[in-house]
Amino acid sequence: MQSGDLIKRLEGLGFGEADARTLADHFLAAEARGKTGHGLSRVAWLETRPFELDPDARPKCLLREPGYERWDGNGTLGYLTLAAIVDAQLAEPPDHARLVVAQRTFPTGMLGYWTRRLAEGGVVAALTATSPARLGHPDGDRKLTGTNPLSIAIPSSGGDPVVSDVSMGRVTYGDVLAGEAGEDELVPFGGEHAHKAFALAVGLQLLVDSLVGEPAHGAVLLVARPEADPVPELRARAAGLRLPGDR
Amino acid sequence: MQSGDLIKRLEGLGFGEADARTLADHFLAAEARGKTGHGLSRVAWLETRPFELDPDARPKCLLREPGYERWDGNGTLGYLTLAAIVDAQLAEPPDHARLVVAQRTFPTGMLGYWTRRLAEGGVVAALTATSPARLGHPDGDRKLTGTNPLSIAIPSSGGDPVVSDVSMGRVTYGDVLAGEAGEDELVPFGGEHAHKAFALAVGLQLLVDSLVGEPAHGAVLLVARPEADPVPELRARAAGLRLPGDR
Repeated sequence: MQSGDLIKRLEGLGFGEADARTLADHFLAAEARGKTGHGLSRVAWLETRPFELDPDARPKCLLREPGYERWDGNGTLGYLTLAAIVDAQLAEPPDHARLVVAQRTFPTGMLGYWTRRLAEGGVVAALTATSPARLGHPDGDRKLTGTNPLSIAIPSSGGDPVVSDVSMGRVTYGDVLAGEAGEDELVPFGGEHAHKAFALAVGLQLLVDSLVGEPAHGAVLLVARPEADPVPELRARAAGLRLPGDR
Repeated sequence: MQSGDLIKRLEGLGFGEADARTLADHFLAAEARGKTGHGLSRVAWLETRPFELDPDARPKCLLREPGYERWDGNGTLGYLTLAAIVDAQLAEPPDHARLVVAQRTFPTGMLGYWTRRLAEGGVVAALTATSPARLGHPDGDRKLTGTNPLSIAIPSSGGDPVVSDVSMGRVTYGDVLAGEAGEDELVPFGGEHAHKAFALAVGLQLLVDSLVGEPAHGAVLLVARPEADPVPELRARAAGLRLPGDR
């Protein structure tokens, strides 16, 4: 699908041209990386109105300090909240480090898209986000935690940041939405070591849940100014092996 | 081994009584949790003098701002640097959040021991640390990254914090030292999804490597004041299932 057509389709949901373009860029980037569960399948999903959409809503920055910000999605799509947060960090990077808590922020999409934008702007970034509880305990059926990906992106003087982006699920709910996996595959990854992925998902879930001021899905972003440039040396040692985020 | 005997043994390495007690507490806590690779096997390892020990060295706080601290191990054992950092955070918790970068900080031991102390003091904590490159790329033999655990600890009004602590290795080097695993088992966990654990390990490695001012093993700690108390509700939903960090 062409960007112009997708923007029109998103405008059909009520979004203005700028927001539609922001959303389209994310969905098409997900498609381009083969993460179809965060791509066009999500547009079809939004068209089912899985929750109330308020295309006129705008995220709010509730608190801004040098090392801490708290944002509220304020009824907008999580993608747009993260886009606003990324823009704000790039406009005013931290002197050293800053934690950004984004409450009422859902859905957040392919987290590596946001951290990559930060790393390409010279900022170290680590981002996690919660989603509905779809992962069960390895020893029980009850769904206790979201798949809660963790993405870490590191700038590189070579222009080729490393961008890891790992969901704790064996598959993602997006894969289920995209028809590429069954819901029964939505378990912590790792097979005999699934307790490790479950523990990571629970830790990230509670990290977000303990930092947001409203009990709803949210995101936590760490941004920092790099003191060193470790990517070129790692790429040299990897000698051509694919590193996280490479195509 | 009794605490008093272990303290004497550590004093035999040249450490003063207070440092020996700090070290003994960590090693015995690791033993009590069955993480023998971070327990007494490490005392035997230190007794082989795997690197120069300077029992009189003291960690230094190089920079202190409300939302950021940089520490340098300054030749002391990483355990003692983390102990000093934890004490400092508990003495002056952040108003909202603070990133603490600990450079030249190795070895760091069972990370959940440090984050648990913070959570028991009411502080949300996330901690990672690097170690020698012992994990290879899933598609190659070359060792590219440390096992780089991530520990997240969340306080609970019920007095029972959740403490996740996950190494990205199928086993830890400590397990190898303790004779409980072979070096060939030191690969990213996850079997067919080992690329996920590898990506997490690489992301955490570069996060630390990009934030430290000296190219050596280090640790990165996020501490934050909780805005919410999500653990009791999760424990209620888990209905008795073991959550991360529970015995």
